[in-house]
Amino acid sequence: MQFELTQEIVTQIIAYINDKKDNELSKLLTELHYADIAEILEELNFEEALYIIKLLDSEQTADIIAELDEDTREKVLESLSSKEIAEEIDELETDDAADILNELPEERKEEVIAQIEDYDHAKDILELLKYDEDTAGGLMSKELIAVNENWTVMRCVREMREQAKEFDRVHTIYVIDDNETLKGRLSLKSLLTTSTKTPIKEIYNPKITSVKTNEDDEEVAKIMQKYDLVVIPVIDELERLVGQITIDDVVDVIRDEADKDYQMAAGITQDVEADDTVWELTRARLPWLILGLLGGLGSVFIMEGFDEALNNYKELFFFTPLIAAMAGNVGVQSSAIIVQGLANDNVKGSLWERLLKEVGLSLINGIVLGIIVVLFGIVTGLDNKFSLTISLSMLCVIIVAALIGTFVPIILNKRGIDPAIATGPFITTSNDIFGIFLFFYIAKLILGFH
Amino acid sequence: MQFELTQEIVTQIIAYINDKKDNELSKLLTELHYADIAEILEELNFEEALYIIKLLDSEQTADIIAELDEDTREKVLESLSSKEIAEEIDELETDDAADILNELPEERKEEVIAQIEDYDHAKDILELLKYDEDTAGGLMSKELIAVNENWTVMRCVREMREQAKEFDRVHTIYVIDDNETLKGRLSLKSLLTTSTKTPIKEIYNPKITSVKTNEDDEEVAKIMQKYDLVVIPVIDELERLVGQITIDDVVDVIRDEADKDYQMAAGITQDVEADDTVWELTRARLPWLILGLLGGLGSVFIMEGFDEALNNYKELFFFTPLIAAMAGNVGVQSSAIIVQGLANDNVKGSLWERLLKEVGLSLINGIVLGIIVVLFGIVTGLDNKFSLTISLSMLCVIIVAALIGTFVPIILNKRGIDPAIATGPFITTSNDIFGIFLFFYIAKLILGFH
Repeated sequence: MQFELTQEIVTQIIAYINDKKDNELSKLLTELHYADIAEILEELNFEEALYIIKLLDSEQTADIIAELDEDTREKVLESLSSKEIAEEIDELETDDAADILNELPEERKEEVIAQIEDYDHAKDILELLKYDEDTAGGLMSKELIAVNENWTVMRCVREMREQAKEFDRVHTIYVIDDNETLKGRLSLKSLLTTSTKTPIKEIYNPKITSVKTNEDDEEVAKIMQKYDLVVIPVIDELERLVGQITIDDVVDVIRDEADKDYQMAAGITQDVEADDTVWELTRARLPWLILGLLGGLGSVFIMEGFDEALNNYKELFFFTPLIAAMAGNVGVQSSAIIVQGLANDNVKGSLWERLLKEVGLSLINGIVLGIIVVLFGIVTGLDNKFSLTISLSMLCVIIVAALIGTFVPIILNKRGIDPAIATGPFITTSNDIFGIFLFFYIAKLILGFH
Repeated sequence: MQFELTQEIVTQIIAYINDKKDNELSKLLTELHYADIAEILEELNFEEALYIIKLLDSEQTADIIAELDEDTREKVLESLSSKEIAEEIDELETDDAADILNELPEERKEEVIAQIEDYDHAKDILELLKYDEDTAGGLMSKELIAVNENWTVMRCVREMREQAKEFDRVHTIYVIDDNETLKGRLSLKSLLTTSTKTPIKEIYNPKITSVKTNEDDEEVAKIMQKYDLVVIPVIDELERLVGQITIDDVVDVIRDEADKDYQMAAGITQDVEADDTVWELTRARLPWLILGLLGGLGSVFIMEGFDEALNNYKELFFFTPLIAAMAGNVGVQSSAIIVQGLANDNVKGSLWERLLKEVGLSLINGIVLGIIVVLFGIVTGLDNKFSLTISLSMLCVIIVAALIGTFVPIILNKRGIDPAIATGPFITTSNDIFGIFLFFYIAKLILGFH
């Protein structure tokens, strides 16, 4: 029932391509879902992939192209004429069409639009191109079923029959007035169970959640999740129904957002994948490593300032990676919890309560970890005063690290900056420096070295 | 058009509760969406929340209870009698009903089930309780519309009218045979545009993607995303249609998975939130901190082994936090990219290619970072040979760290272990130890201290 991409299928397809067995190839591919064909194309070399795209008709290839990886799609589109791309666009739903057009160079884009055959389709796509990609307008499609509140059930069914011809799946029947203002939705239940002469006005459900075209895409995702919506209508400033967003597009927004936070926490800027080039990966990774390096050089300076400790307490220097690790780990934990909490709107209570909580938490963790250090000292024959000093300094480092990890994201968020940048290397680097300074400073106070 | 939770609304509601103005309260709440009411309840104290739940009728409260935070729901359910819970369950769709029942203690669960009034509903729920929560069976609901392939369009509309009474939204009309085997789906288009005497057999679409009841929930999420499905039918071993999964439930799976990976990378076991208790947070965080501490104590040992370097090259010890930071950051970057790649199935090519790529990438990054260290050495008056030694050791550390970060998750994944555990503290800790050892070892080879 389900397709599994195997090496045999790929080998078979390559053999067909090499032998130019077009009939066999078409027959094999026509039975597959376009998402599966897109997956196969990613396994072929570019000439082979292009051969298949040229072989199949645009009704099939349009969806395949929309499913391809952005890099592959870019190369495929470069190999097609404007006329050919326009034919693909003609087959696509408006939202996918607009997304693909947005990937083309400006001049090419205009050439393609000029050659789209279906005038209404072209008009709809042009409208979508106006909107920012990160907004509800940029996510929505124009394909939807709307009926006028003044129609009867009978007229409604007749008109829907017309409209439905173009769409495969209908999720919601929207009800609008003569000005195209969104009034509500009509359930299939009402449509099926009401007499054909009843006006829609009397049976539609006016409770409907909608978003404005300029609503932020992440906000759309939150609303759809909160109200468990599969589809949401989009309205303009005059509350006219202009499109709808289906949840599959929103799932991509949710995943992208989660991926971005994850990459940020791991010290990777930009959206990179395991299969990107060494150059793309370097650009995404090197800046954070340089930040970490500068932090490390900062700690070199700090330790030079405390180098008199080398005379009597050289072991202090053996503990610096441990202190840095603790400061880093605690900071990352605290910031990750806050960043997730902010994303899900469940960071409640006053800053003061949060401060007390973090300090309490750090005390518990710090004391347990301190006891382990003291035990380690006993086993390895360290001076007791020295072990206690290390435990105590570490405890202070952990408290400060937790506070930095908690409050830096909160402060960034209050200033409208994405708090996720305060996770990962940013927090580990700053905590390394603070941690090492604090560690030596407290040790100096207790042990009194000069 | 959209609800915004304000302090005014909360204050107003608390005032109504205190003054026992039940009519005003009901009127205000009836206009709100159940998800909004659930949000309001989270802002109230427990007695106030319970007051509202007892006030409203079960048709409304059932959905509210299903939307509450698990902790709040647990307390609410404890305050309701088995009979009252059974009434709520009666109003819920089967999947939500089963989820709530699963949260009850075993004995309570049986009491509640025995008191569900609608026999068919109870039977459906009992069936769902059989399935593992992480499988398609555990995600699906029994509410769906199915028509027999042998019916005519007319009979089909009549039967649907019956079935549709119970459901608000219809996404797909499934077609089954006399044995309840899933045959395909019927589009609204065909239903609207075909003569009433046509048998369903002639107009249904046999292309339909389904999942088995025992399919893993993450696999279901992948399939629905790949094929852009809003709903997917679930079949049993005999290919009989037994339920359907809508995408809103799958969105939760996707988010949970992303959250889990993120928390794993940040060194947090278990699913915790910013508002959990100090004790819950400690249990989730302390184990990873202990791991980090043990790693740090390991580096103390390593440095003690190289302490002869203190005589002539004490600055080496100032550089250990820098080396640890580089090893940690590089390791986390590499592992994060691989873990994401494995989750999205886009880690392709042979291990050998990946090895070359990581080494190439590390060489580029390492050389740039090494140049910065040499420049730092010149500015701060370090011996040139010494600066070069540090750069070279750091380069080796970066290469090894990248390899560990890349291959540990790949190997874990091949052995069927979740590669996400190899991110965060695990990789930083092991890379700290390897890094510091390698750093001193190479420095010793070059500088030749005894």
